[in-house]
Amino acid sequence: MYNEESESILEKLKEEQDFLIGTINVSLGDISFTLINKDLIGSVIESWFNKWVILNNIVVKKNMDSQAFPDYYVGQENDFLELKCFDADRRPSFDIADFENYYEIVNENSELSLKYLDCDYLIFGYTMTSTGEIIISDIFLKKIWEITCPSKKFPLRVQSKRGKIYAIRPTVWYSKSSRIEFPVFESKYEFFEALNRTYELYKNENYW
Amino acid sequence: MYNEESESILEKLKEEQDFLIGTINVSLGDISFTLINKDLIGSVIESWFNKWVILNNIVVKKNMDSQAFPDYYVGQENDFLELKCFDADRRPSFDIADFENYYEIVNENSELSLKYLDCDYLIFGYTMTSTGEIIISDIFLKKIWEITCPSKKFPLRVQSKRGKIYAIRPTVWYSKSSRIEFPVFESKYEFFEALNRTYELYKNENYW
Repeated sequence: MYNEESESILEKLKEEQDFLIGTINVSLGDISFTLINKDLIGSVIESWFNKWVILNNIVVKKNMDSQAFPDYYVGQENDFLELKCFDADRRPSFDIADFENYYEIVNENSELSLKYLDCDYLIFGYTMTSTGEIIISDIFLKKIWEITCPSKKFPLRVQSKRGKIYAIRPTVWYSKSSRIEFPVFESKYEFFEALNRTYELYKNENYW
Repeated sequence: MYNEESESILEKLKEEQDFLIGTINVSLGDISFTLINKDLIGSVIESWFNKWVILNNIVVKKNMDSQAFPDYYVGQENDFLELKCFDADRRPSFDIADFENYYEIVNENSELSLKYLDCDYLIFGYTMTSTGEIIISDIFLKKIWEITCPSKKFPLRVQSKRGKIYAIRPTVWYSKSSRIEFPVFESKYEFFEALNRTYELYKNENYW
């Protein structure tokens, strides 16, 4: 189901996971200190991952447009790989994809549509101690339907503000708690239907 | 005009400025590298400044609500001090203050109104070399009317999007270029008037 290269990345990372502990050290003028600031960790993990793939002779191509989807292309078919990070002490709240853009592309019935739907998500959960030690506590490889679910308002959980939907957002896919109201989707098709029904409701003004 | 403590901070920083060169080093697992990412520098300078004031026995009180205005209180009267950073290779584009909130408070005619208007802005301009070396290239101490100006659309330059004004934004106050259309305000009162006229226009629907 996942790209083979993505799977080999996950496997290698998992082997190293116990040693994936680190710090961000700042030196400016004659002051040196360890940064205790969680906001920067996601960006730091991404820079670190770019070094890690080179050191491990893994062939992934970075998307030269750093703002665009996906982050990387993997394997001979240039499958899509997205890198996501979240503070493992909180609910994951990263943007999986821009809602309208994603909807439009997966409904084009083009080759690109399948690439988008089948994108691999490599997800790092991190924690930071009070002394600034970064610990990679979880590493996941997931498909979009394995980390998304319905919400009370829409068939697909999204980030919406003042009548506008911005992004597709993840649920706490790894939680076994009975307090989680909606389980993740069971298949790509279930997700795809939820996406399309959400779009229809969104464009139906009477719904708001 | 500026708080005495703010002036002494500026003076000490200026003495050290030639030595204010540094790096952000990441170590995670068995990979160590220098971060080459400008996005994080503002946040790093703020953390660094918090260490620097302690090391220099400067009495500033950090606002415990890190999201709120101002960043610091200085001197016996608890005057306001804001810390701002910008990439000196580009136009400064930081938010000086939230527009509506700022307008409301300075028009309250309270003690707080004067504190807001008289807030000192300590501003760091930085550059980063291709190898990740951070250089503090400029340090300024400014009042709000010394870094703001009119714009074509409003008496006060603001950040507006889709009919909504978000923040008060700075001009390139240090530029001597004749291409700068609007000079900074000449006084607090000129700024104050521009703020209020901008608010009136903003609330007048016919203007949009």
